[in-house]
Amino acid sequence: MKGEIITIGNELLSGLVTDTNSTFIAERLSSFGIEPLYITTVGDDESRIGQSLKAAVLRADVIVVTGGLGPTPDDITSKAIAKALEKRLVLFPEALDQIEIKLKKRGIKLGPGSERQALLPKGSTIIKNPVGTAPGYKISQDGKFIFVLPGVPKEMKVMIDQGVLPILGEESKQKIFVAKKVLKVFGLTESQVYERVKNISYNKKLMQVGFLPVFPENFITITARVEDSMESAEGLVRGVEEKMRGVLGERVFGEDDETLEMVVAGMLITKGLKLAVSESCSGGLLSKRLTDLPGSSTYFERGVVSYSNEAKSSLIGVDQTLIQTKGAVSADVAEAMAMGIKRGAKTDIGVSITGIAGPSGGTEEKPVGTVFIALAFNEDRSSNHKKEEIVISQGYAFPGDRESIRLISSEMALEWIRRYLLGGKIAEVGERWRATEAVDI
Amino acid sequence: MKGEIITIGNELLSGLVTDTNSTFIAERLSSFGIEPLYITTVGDDESRIGQSLKAAVLRADVIVVTGGLGPTPDDITSKAIAKALEKRLVLFPEALDQIEIKLKKRGIKLGPGSERQALLPKGSTIIKNPVGTAPGYKISQDGKFIFVLPGVPKEMKVMIDQGVLPILGEESKQKIFVAKKVLKVFGLTESQVYERVKNISYNKKLMQVGFLPVFPENFITITARVEDSMESAEGLVRGVEEKMRGVLGERVFGEDDETLEMVVAGMLITKGLKLAVSESCSGGLLSKRLTDLPGSSTYFERGVVSYSNEAKSSLIGVDQTLIQTKGAVSADVAEAMAMGIKRGAKTDIGVSITGIAGPSGGTEEKPVGTVFIALAFNEDRSSNHKKEEIVISQGYAFPGDRESIRLISSEMALEWIRRYLLGGKIAEVGERWRATEAVDI
Repeated sequence: MKGEIITIGNELLSGLVTDTNSTFIAERLSSFGIEPLYITTVGDDESRIGQSLKAAVLRADVIVVTGGLGPTPDDITSKAIAKALEKRLVLFPEALDQIEIKLKKRGIKLGPGSERQALLPKGSTIIKNPVGTAPGYKISQDGKFIFVLPGVPKEMKVMIDQGVLPILGEESKQKIFVAKKVLKVFGLTESQVYERVKNISYNKKLMQVGFLPVFPENFITITARVEDSMESAEGLVRGVEEKMRGVLGERVFGEDDETLEMVVAGMLITKGLKLAVSESCSGGLLSKRLTDLPGSSTYFERGVVSYSNEAKSSLIGVDQTLIQTKGAVSADVAEAMAMGIKRGAKTDIGVSITGIAGPSGGTEEKPVGTVFIALAFNEDRSSNHKKEEIVISQGYAFPGDRESIRLISSEMALEWIRRYLLGGKIAEVGERWRATEAVDI
Repeated sequence: MKGEIITIGNELLSGLVTDTNSTFIAERLSSFGIEPLYITTVGDDESRIGQSLKAAVLRADVIVVTGGLGPTPDDITSKAIAKALEKRLVLFPEALDQIEIKLKKRGIKLGPGSERQALLPKGSTIIKNPVGTAPGYKISQDGKFIFVLPGVPKEMKVMIDQGVLPILGEESKQKIFVAKKVLKVFGLTESQVYERVKNISYNKKLMQVGFLPVFPENFITITARVEDSMESAEGLVRGVEEKMRGVLGERVFGEDDETLEMVVAGMLITKGLKLAVSESCSGGLLSKRLTDLPGSSTYFERGVVSYSNEAKSSLIGVDQTLIQTKGAVSADVAEAMAMGIKRGAKTDIGVSITGIAGPSGGTEEKPVGTVFIALAFNEDRSSNHKKEEIVISQGYAFPGDRESIRLISSEMALEWIRRYLLGGKIAEVGERWRATEAVDI
């Protein structure tokens, strides 16, 4: 089954608002086994709405239209649809009743706009709107299903899940089972990822593999669409996933909706470890990412944004002489920061970032993008069963503008923590940006 | 002139990625006087890319295509375009050279994928990509301009501004002058904004006024399109803008691309003041926003993410007894945090946030969303010409989920700084979320 999405609204064509409705609908349709082939966005214009719908009816089996069902005069979607399908607009008393109930709850009376909202193409089946006033509806044409929903995302989303998908489930005879997996990689370029996995074979008739750079990460998407069963679709995806994980190893940091901070948080919680953060050029971004998640106080003890040299010494005990001789952006200061925050916070791990995010502040020796990461932790020395404090650091030359440098710095620090918690191979992390000798772990 | 946008990528049709490119392009084209009529999104499919392009050539004068110019085999945009326009793909040595230079900088050799990236439809004019490797290009068909750009937003944006718009500026004969202004408001709802400005009249034939909530802010957009001159368009916009500023007063914190942090940073720099930040539930977001801007070390001295109670006392000297008796989330602790960070950092201003971002940690007395903001500063007492330390605080009950609460907390703290630097009216800030008595400034 082929799908198509039409989103309607002048605000989408002026660049003021990003169309997120079609992302949601595309995800739901494709998870249901309906492959969206086109997304079309048009303004509140009768002729262009009509033309888009006519083209969609020729190409797709299921069409979802959103937007332009409100009570104001610029809401003309139903009129345009009726005209394109050569149907009359008729008043649906059931729709009007629902609008009246909703308005009453808010202490508002039925107005002329509301009556226009209850005028739907003849033959429509109403789809209830549990959130707002505008009713949605289903209408069939040439054996194709057209679903028309309001553009307010909160309303549209509920109506897709509670209205559209159940109807499609009943109507569809031929079932398609879709399994999907996204593998997330950090530290390799898109080409490097591709080169490593390109010889992995898969059934190209039933499966798709895609590569997507989402700075500073790269995603691999594996999709299978089969007719027999979900188990079969999942099995195909799992087969390819395992081979890819085999060649990519620890480069794969997560899958599907997982973020790097989520993975790191999960590992810290499982191992019962706490960390503290000291950052300069990233200005709080690393702390922010580590505390984005509910329950972050379990593993996050404190963060210090030691922007000034004075802050570095008074808050985390970095020696001012060290800063003067080596520079605030140096391996030595990064190590002192990681060690200092770890000791001050009495945590298991201390991590630090110091660098030059630019656009100014760079020198010939240390240009913009120069960033040092350091990690301090305890290691069991089996010889005497005593814990020893270890600190490691690495200098990088990151590309891009201030925002990119700050983002990749925080990403790199998170990746260091992940690799450390995995028990190794920090040396292989981000080798292409390495500016100093590789760390020995 | 009519515009059309085609975005290409399987990830856009599977719901994995939201198409933000078309938002940006639509904004730029419409600011330039080119009205985008359709946005079409298709997957990496030769026939559908071709069909979309053919339809666009029939309907529009300027067509912008993005995506599918990468080095991997699923990048087939150029091939599809060449086929649709019945042109041959030829190797552009200039394009290959540019790719080679870029790769060399990163220490990567030219691969077979790179050569495919340099195969462009015959007759194309290259549009330089100052950010990444994939070259863009312009190609003409039936007097229409087709611009093909990579899908990576950072690359595409620069290429639109530095490549596409200058070419359009040279080629266009009929001039339309478009002036735009966005006014940004924090602390009022969309309806409250509308109620205040609805009686301001403007020429509805030449002008548009729009209202757009962008959580936690509200934008008002004022647009004028005229044929005579840019001065005339700007004059119309200025007239409406001034009336709106008249009724909204200090509620308008910025305009156009200005962010609240930018405005605050500008004021701090102008006044030669430094600040330091202590935050708990916002986890570094306030520090991050204050250091997003180049040159932030001029005004930002340090930040502390005092997540644990121990961090609050050891880093900023908050009394443990105070935390035990009043609670970490309280006006007293917020004030102690603001004062403590100000004194420790020896800055002019100290600002703090302590609250419950949820989803857990709420109590009946202090539910999720309870947040205290405090501001410490020096005030000249004219009686004895001595500076006195002042600290003020306010409790709020913010709505929404963890992400919303963290965002609105950082926004509110920034707004406090802005209002303080403006010389007053912190009392009127965010009154609808107020949970404790209004501060007396």
